[in-house]
Amino acid sequence: MTVTAPQGFRAAGVAAGLKSTGAPDVALVVNDGPDDAAAAVFTTNRFPAAPVLWSRQVLADHRLRAVVLNSGGANACTGPEGFADTHTTAEHVAAELGIGAVDVAVASTGLIGMRLPMDTLLAGVGAAVAVLSADGGPDAARAIMTTDSVPKTTVQTGNGWTIGGMAKGAGMLAPSLATMLVVLTTDAVVPADVLQPALRAATSVSVERVDSDGCLSTNDTVIVLANGASGVTPSAEEFTAALTAAATDLAMQLLADAEGSTKDIAITVRNAASVADAVTAGRACARNNLLKTALFGNDPNWGRVLAAIGTTDAAFEPDQVDVTINGVTVCRAGAIGDPREGVDLSGRAITIDVDLRAGGEQATIWTNDLSLAYVHENSAYST
Amino acid sequence: MTVTAPQGFRAAGVAAGLKSTGAPDVALVVNDGPDDAAAAVFTTNRFPAAPVLWSRQVLADHRLRAVVLNSGGANACTGPEGFADTHTTAEHVAAELGIGAVDVAVASTGLIGMRLPMDTLLAGVGAAVAVLSADGGPDAARAIMTTDSVPKTTVQTGNGWTIGGMAKGAGMLAPSLATMLVVLTTDAVVPADVLQPALRAATSVSVERVDSDGCLSTNDTVIVLANGASGVTPSAEEFTAALTAAATDLAMQLLADAEGSTKDIAITVRNAASVADAVTAGRACARNNLLKTALFGNDPNWGRVLAAIGTTDAAFEPDQVDVTINGVTVCRAGAIGDPREGVDLSGRAITIDVDLRAGGEQATIWTNDLSLAYVHENSAYST
Repeated sequence: MTVTAPQGFRAAGVAAGLKSTGAPDVALVVNDGPDDAAAAVFTTNRFPAAPVLWSRQVLADHRLRAVVLNSGGANACTGPEGFADTHTTAEHVAAELGIGAVDVAVASTGLIGMRLPMDTLLAGVGAAVAVLSADGGPDAARAIMTTDSVPKTTVQTGNGWTIGGMAKGAGMLAPSLATMLVVLTTDAVVPADVLQPALRAATSVSVERVDSDGCLSTNDTVIVLANGASGVTPSAEEFTAALTAAATDLAMQLLADAEGSTKDIAITVRNAASVADAVTAGRACARNNLLKTALFGNDPNWGRVLAAIGTTDAAFEPDQVDVTINGVTVCRAGAIGDPREGVDLSGRAITIDVDLRAGGEQATIWTNDLSLAYVHENSAYST
Repeated sequence: MTVTAPQGFRAAGVAAGLKSTGAPDVALVVNDGPDDAAAAVFTTNRFPAAPVLWSRQVLADHRLRAVVLNSGGANACTGPEGFADTHTTAEHVAAELGIGAVDVAVASTGLIGMRLPMDTLLAGVGAAVAVLSADGGPDAARAIMTTDSVPKTTVQTGNGWTIGGMAKGAGMLAPSLATMLVVLTTDAVVPADVLQPALRAATSVSVERVDSDGCLSTNDTVIVLANGASGVTPSAEEFTAALTAAATDLAMQLLADAEGSTKDIAITVRNAASVADAVTAGRACARNNLLKTALFGNDPNWGRVLAAIGTTDAAFEPDQVDVTINGVTVCRAGAIGDPREGVDLSGRAITIDVDLRAGGEQATIWTNDLSLAYVHENSAYST
């Protein structure tokens, strides 16, 4: 049921014609209250798309009644005209629903640098409003797909309340062309001053640590809506834990469906001097094309792990670092460890464990391999 | 004639058997004086290979008589035993030549994390000494090749003096598995206190700005030897300019031979607030897999250029940035410019011009596309 699993939400997904394939491309999520608390995190890219600029603005008061999403065009790098298009879209949604445009967030995904065909989009919005339903979550989840092969959805159940969610994308809060869009809904009673830190905490250890190809989209958006329809007020800790579970569930689905990937790789950096150091070292591995191609080739090339973390400023001594790949400590004290022939990389799941012996902190970064299919898909996308 | 083009240098390249293919794999360059000035720059990777540790040490006095290089094994991440192997190699060269080991630099390239077969290597060193010749430059250039398809050499002629050089690698001072090794020689009279800044200046705008795949090797080494055999003392400016020309010539050859590449891409960032900003923005493009795959697919996807520089902290306003690809200004003021259909990407050479409108500095970064062949070669390398 995705975003319509909690009480008091309706959703829809329709084919407006933005995609040449005729697949669904406009989604709408409506919060019927009673509360309208909302929070969001957005891409840190310095070329934020028009819908990101708009949504950031309307979320300043931490209240939302609706989110409209489209695939088939990112509306990024489209200048003032593109911003006007987003504004018009929000106004249209608001008019159809009898609410204010300032209560409508917009999210878009697709090719950068193209205007959206507004007649097509607005007609799609009207069609979506017409079929809004408390069973519409699955349709909405399908309408935001681009290169995704399956819809990504989650439901987490609290004590008398529920969190629902949908996502699209083949990456992270720094994904691929396949911008990551996530909408989370809950019928728990969660005031805005709890909701925003909860979302920040949930995303920081989930979607923000998925680094499929190191490329930060102009459109990434994660929005959570809380309507209090259940009447139940969970503790901040309880709610944050459930929201983190929902975001992590979606993140793992993004990872598993990353464009052209053949491996899901979890890189855990242990005994780091700080979480930041662990993230930095893990991310350096996740972004190292030589390591990613080696793993695609089932080659436990631990030298490329060291070469990657050797480019960072994380605290460690080169002759203290151990690397374990799928359970085999192939590198010990920065030098040759157990035979690499013992490492079985034939499955999809790969774990890389880097022990820095420099402190007590750790972090896991999730990534994919760099495959022939990745190159193929991303060289053929816009043409 | 490569490294033996200047007077007073001998070289050799032999097949010792380090490579299973039987191709040449040990090179030796000897400076017969009268001077023995030398300078070097090395990888900044924090896991420097044993030969890098050794050579950095022996170059502390800025004097060298010989450089021994091997392909077929990087001797990186091999611990104290690997360092002892490098030391033994230098001692062996020194004994054969009747000089001190402290006058012998060592450079290695190949797979990380494997000990070198020392009997094979030392026998090869002996064989190389036996065939040292003033015509040996081309043999030496061939013996340092790994995945290189052609040897890379250069000769620059001054007024009565000459610079010769050879290089291997498919990248930069941060290349691919194909570590970059460069040896430059000159018979100009160049004291060490001129030679080191000249080399630093030459490499900073040439090999250090080639960023083929963003991966920094553990073994990168650039060494220059100056023996004064010509008796001519060029000005520091004159010598630096010629050395820069030699390093740039080699850098462009590395770029053209990068593993699996189909495009040579020059990214020039203009009107930056600083050279550092221009380099940062250019490098972000050079390391963006989505942009690199798009260019492989002949797609002038300027949105990916903006998305890449949007991840940096370079000074610019998003609505001021222009992007010109192969002469067509496809992005103007951060938004849609001339039609992308006008861009012809069918050739190997691609120029991307980013105008930040934030100052008066500029820099060019050279890179390659991300091709199916890159993934294929690098997933199949060590297995």
